[in-house]
Amino acid sequence: MQACGLIVEYNPFHNGHKFHIQASRQESGADCIIAVMSGPFLQRGEPAIIDKFHRTKAALAAGVDIVVELPYLYAVQSSDLFAHGAVQTLHELGVSSICFGSESGDISHFTRGYDLLNQYQTSYQTMLQTKLDQGLAFPEASRLAYETIGLTTGGIDLAKPNNILGFSYVKAIFNNHLSIEPLTISRLNSDYHDEHMTGSVASATSIRHELLKKGHISADAANSLPEETVSQLQTYQAEATSWHTWENYFDLVHYRVMTMTEEELAAIYGVDEGLEHRIKKTGNKATSFQGWIGMIKTKRYTWTRLQRIFTHILTNTRKTDAASVKHSQSVPHVRLLGMTKTGQTYLHNWKKAMNVPLISTLARQDNLIAATDERASHAYYSSLPAARKRAFQHQELEPPIIL
Amino acid sequence: MQACGLIVEYNPFHNGHKFHIQASRQESGADCIIAVMSGPFLQRGEPAIIDKFHRTKAALAAGVDIVVELPYLYAVQSSDLFAHGAVQTLHELGVSSICFGSESGDISHFTRGYDLLNQYQTSYQTMLQTKLDQGLAFPEASRLAYETIGLTTGGIDLAKPNNILGFSYVKAIFNNHLSIEPLTISRLNSDYHDEHMTGSVASATSIRHELLKKGHISADAANSLPEETVSQLQTYQAEATSWHTWENYFDLVHYRVMTMTEEELAAIYGVDEGLEHRIKKTGNKATSFQGWIGMIKTKRYTWTRLQRIFTHILTNTRKTDAASVKHSQSVPHVRLLGMTKTGQTYLHNWKKAMNVPLISTLARQDNLIAATDERASHAYYSSLPAARKRAFQHQELEPPIIL
Repeated sequence: MQACGLIVEYNPFHNGHKFHIQASRQESGADCIIAVMSGPFLQRGEPAIIDKFHRTKAALAAGVDIVVELPYLYAVQSSDLFAHGAVQTLHELGVSSICFGSESGDISHFTRGYDLLNQYQTSYQTMLQTKLDQGLAFPEASRLAYETIGLTTGGIDLAKPNNILGFSYVKAIFNNHLSIEPLTISRLNSDYHDEHMTGSVASATSIRHELLKKGHISADAANSLPEETVSQLQTYQAEATSWHTWENYFDLVHYRVMTMTEEELAAIYGVDEGLEHRIKKTGNKATSFQGWIGMIKTKRYTWTRLQRIFTHILTNTRKTDAASVKHSQSVPHVRLLGMTKTGQTYLHNWKKAMNVPLISTLARQDNLIAATDERASHAYYSSLPAARKRAFQHQELEPPIIL
Repeated sequence: MQACGLIVEYNPFHNGHKFHIQASRQESGADCIIAVMSGPFLQRGEPAIIDKFHRTKAALAAGVDIVVELPYLYAVQSSDLFAHGAVQTLHELGVSSICFGSESGDISHFTRGYDLLNQYQTSYQTMLQTKLDQGLAFPEASRLAYETIGLTTGGIDLAKPNNILGFSYVKAIFNNHLSIEPLTISRLNSDYHDEHMTGSVASATSIRHELLKKGHISADAANSLPEETVSQLQTYQAEATSWHTWENYFDLVHYRVMTMTEEELAAIYGVDEGLEHRIKKTGNKATSFQGWIGMIKTKRYTWTRLQRIFTHILTNTRKTDAASVKHSQSVPHVRLLGMTKTGQTYLHNWKKAMNVPLISTLARQDNLIAATDERASHAYYSSLPAARKRAFQHQELEPPIIL
């Protein structure tokens, strides 16, 4: 039995994802589709609209066979660490391929890009450092450095976040000499940053904005969402009383910042170069999350980077916690969220060959990755009313979802 | 010009307090009444119903000449440290007497008690340690030890919280050889623990319960409150949207506990003997503040002690912060909250003789006492809606209230 891996956030799961699952199955010829999915908080430093358990249900209903969780310490990271954690997780699960979406849908653009980068490593590093020293944010500095070595002309436009992630996956596979074949599928008429609904394969970003702006599922959004997602979104909203947005966490993160010492704030992952003073100072004037980030934002500290930092403050993730993933090659365990019958058969056979434990709850896991995941989960549900919080938190202790 | 000091919480300021001010003026023969008042959080580990600025206004309107703030690190403490901070503050302000309420209203009971304690110090200490080792809470152990040396038969019943505080004031004055005369006034028909309104001098506890239970000022409560207090309570509720009760902080303190590591929790002042495990574990089931404390409470960990600990968690007050007051003789500054014309004249003359700065905001104060007060203030207003929070917090930067 062969497995193909996807690396996803499913925030929320939409028609494009459903298409991607079908295409991946075809492209890879695999019998089993495994998705490694971000948990409560996402790569761009945002809470997921609905929790990982409800997103897992939507994913299984739409064709994924196994959903596992990408630990927080890999999920809320820039693309290279995000990709490293995701690829290592899929490697532990024995996938023979990983399939990701890209603008061109041509994998040779990525493999050629990888060769080019290897060849001009020094020029790339020098230019990257120069641009960083000029005060540019990492994504922009990196894009310019790639341009220098001719990478954008090779077919991948590294101004597209999706291509950046895809390139990070390819690097994570090749750098670690994993026997995983990278595959890519064109993203069709959906553009990652497009904020308008464009029919049945609208981007995750555009659907998310539509949902959070309206606070309910509009007819437009419903058109881009599979039935399973509409049902999970509705169930969640009814049971939890609301979806999750950063603004729901403003009171908590503001309280937290204003009762921390500057030393404690400086110990949080990502708070560097005296940013603690700026965060504290602007905190005196902030009355909304958007407004607060707007006051701190600079050329170097992009919106996404600041959102990640605030996620680390909210979840109490310190530099010492993050150091553990930076210096470890593999993941300490794989956390199973849900599976179909096919997934169950696959795992039954594969489990013995795994080098790390396959777990279904964090109970009894004694490592920084698990401890951080537990804190992140508590922080995520903290925006809900007291009685709801407890019920939703309890899902963490239940057996994996089986469809 | 002579000054008499009062040690108060004014939560809220009621008719009994008004009577106490008049009686203190008479008893002491002083021209100026100085109240040292707890700030956002009170001795029993509770948020004050309305903030210190509004309580200051009520106190000035009712006859106090100067209101200064007892720093958090002294205010949220057991009686001896509370008394130490309050007496030292009044000493810096040059009071010639301190007048407190007691059951008997006879100061000789307290001075005889002090002599007795000095004489039988060893027996007291031995019995105290024995009772603590048996698992009793400090107040109960201390009461029994006092009984052993005959202190309860000398006229002060040390089962009464008010007498305990009074005795602590007397000890703080005599132990430090201060030239301050202790005075006491009978508390009349008001009993500290009485939860029923008993006419015009009802206890602070009974009024507080009545206010918080009803959420508005009932006719009964209004009878026990001076006009100034009724007006401050109403203004505060209208502007802040609500009074402060522990339940309004449940979400914040629960979020905080559940995102702390056990090591961080164990570093909080008062979290000893593995209490961090118990707090974390019960946190998984808690859905209200009262319910949570109820789950943790034991013979040794009384309700008051636990409330103080939760106040320290909420305000992020660590053992290292508290150590600073335990080992320092004097207070680092005196924070002025408000004054009348008489108070202004007194301070104008006295200021030059002070050993520590008289300040009106915490800005530019660089010590642990000030830093903790700033965090406590932020924590206190954190229960208010974002826009209100900012406006109320801003009072901390305004000049002292002058009536």
